[in-house]
Amino acid sequence: MKLATLKDGSRDGQLAVVARDLSCAHHATGIAGTLQRLLDDWNFLSPQLEDLYATLNEGKARHAFAFDPRQCMAPLPRAYQWVDGSAYLNHVELVRKARGAEMPASFHDDPLIYQGGSDDFLGPTDDAVFASADWGIDFESELAVVTGDVAIGTSPDRALEGVRLLMLVNDWSLRQLIPAELAKGFGFLQGKPATAFGPVAVTPDELGAAWQGGRVHLALESRWNGRRVGLTEAGPEMGFHFGQLIAHVAKTRRLRAGSIVGSGTVSNLDWSHGVSCIAELRAIETIQGGAPTTPYMQFGDTIRIEMTGRDGLSVFGAIDQRVAPPAA
Amino acid sequence: MKLATLKDGSRDGQLAVVARDLSCAHHATGIAGTLQRLLDDWNFLSPQLEDLYATLNEGKARHAFAFDPRQCMAPLPRAYQWVDGSAYLNHVELVRKARGAEMPASFHDDPLIYQGGSDDFLGPTDDAVFASADWGIDFESELAVVTGDVAIGTSPDRALEGVRLLMLVNDWSLRQLIPAELAKGFGFLQGKPATAFGPVAVTPDELGAAWQGGRVHLALESRWNGRRVGLTEAGPEMGFHFGQLIAHVAKTRRLRAGSIVGSGTVSNLDWSHGVSCIAELRAIETIQGGAPTTPYMQFGDTIRIEMTGRDGLSVFGAIDQRVAPPAA
Repeated sequence: MKLATLKDGSRDGQLAVVARDLSCAHHATGIAGTLQRLLDDWNFLSPQLEDLYATLNEGKARHAFAFDPRQCMAPLPRAYQWVDGSAYLNHVELVRKARGAEMPASFHDDPLIYQGGSDDFLGPTDDAVFASADWGIDFESELAVVTGDVAIGTSPDRALEGVRLLMLVNDWSLRQLIPAELAKGFGFLQGKPATAFGPVAVTPDELGAAWQGGRVHLALESRWNGRRVGLTEAGPEMGFHFGQLIAHVAKTRRLRAGSIVGSGTVSNLDWSHGVSCIAELRAIETIQGGAPTTPYMQFGDTIRIEMTGRDGLSVFGAIDQRVAPPAA
Repeated sequence: MKLATLKDGSRDGQLAVVARDLSCAHHATGIAGTLQRLLDDWNFLSPQLEDLYATLNEGKARHAFAFDPRQCMAPLPRAYQWVDGSAYLNHVELVRKARGAEMPASFHDDPLIYQGGSDDFLGPTDDAVFASADWGIDFESELAVVTGDVAIGTSPDRALEGVRLLMLVNDWSLRQLIPAELAKGFGFLQGKPATAFGPVAVTPDELGAAWQGGRVHLALESRWNGRRVGLTEAGPEMGFHFGQLIAHVAKTRRLRAGSIVGSGTVSNLDWSHGVSCIAELRAIETIQGGAPTTPYMQFGDTIRIEMTGRDGLSVFGAIDQRVAPPAA
């Protein structure tokens, strides 16, 4: 099942079911008004939406309309939790190597995850607005899952059963603000502005065999100003699967329905796959030539992130954003 | 105006207006079903609740009932954002001094704030359940504000106008998990389990002249197993007022209605005021005698946190929790 949240002037938007090929959609009105409402009562409501989804895919839904990603908010325009892992250890190692630091051995067993802000997410085609282009504006192409309720102390395998939906993420980062912020010792705040999400959230069965072992075995494409800079494999090098990331968070507290758990920047050891963020490109340049040569994003730059399924269809639709200064 | 959220089996509970003396309450049904709903449309809904509040305080509300804090959830049982500052620099300095570290000078100008989990809060009398008593279980007595919508780049003074409500907080901390977690560099996750909040949230006018310059000029009492361990002054030594904390978060992103911004552990230079967390007591013991002598909390321990107004009434009601092992 594919689900989107459409702009209707409200804070949480309006839930819609979207056809598998993203051609058309149907309001979920009468079943669940918002995605959070669905997640709050998943077992009762989702079968009804699955029926509507089947009807829509058969072309028999009576009030279907053309699906337009520009009308989308983030699937959850605001959420009760957003935690983002650094599951691709190559990313962690690369960024550290560029500044001459070692990655601690414990990082192979103990996932690195940060708590993000979740009160205000960007839709897939919303401008990313920043007051200064000197902040080191960078995209980060990622995946995330949305969970149901997860109990304290849940094992990684059981935690995987708590995965309700998958989403595409652009975890905007302000690289020049991050070093001083992290040096203070309490994690990110100003360095992580509003995160953007892809047009549709999908149930794991939409991925077919590509969803395996808590990982998505598909390639993630990032196009910066139209040029492909990355086609990174999201599956094999994800050092911790989503169940492990969820279980890490659940060690000392429950996760409640609608929690979003991210994978971190998708990254591969083989540099020929390109990158899912500019920081990594600059790290490679530093390792190779002693200094970075690619600047971060400027006002007017665009970033397009998309993942194609084994059926050749776009899984989530595309994140397609422009970096913009504040309105005058 | 004083507001509480009552348990009704739902995730968000039921909003009620509570009399100034906490003697009785009245459901807000017909005006706003939940506190988040009120915050989402504050300017339209709050005057209607203020009318109900006046009627209740006059003893003329027709369906008033006795107020029982044990029926309370957190005022916001789940929220879209919870960030917690360390505005009392004495706390930061003391904890560092105990481990032989200096506080950076920049901490006087640049607030230290962490992003917390907000999907699952504890009510004022809910048990705090932990799998192990070896995790260094500690309370932290604090205050917090709930904001309306705050624009990117808002100044500290303007940010203060975004304060809708104040709350009492117990920011549970697992001290033995924190050092290794912070050493990873991305902030807290397992070290900060579900946070608890006092029975009622209050509008700033409830504090009268005690609400001044974005600070609450009242004393905060902490009783551990019935014994008073702290009566700390929340006003004069708050190094950053709430407007400054909000503005810090708003530098690179908006805050949306219902964001909770905490003060950090209330702490005074004069040790005779006692402490608002055990870590500080242990820090003092370490500075004085070379090693801490007071252990952290054990299963069965209780913590009661309360603040009394200049009128002698409890401002928020009391947080009164017990530390418990998981149900067998």
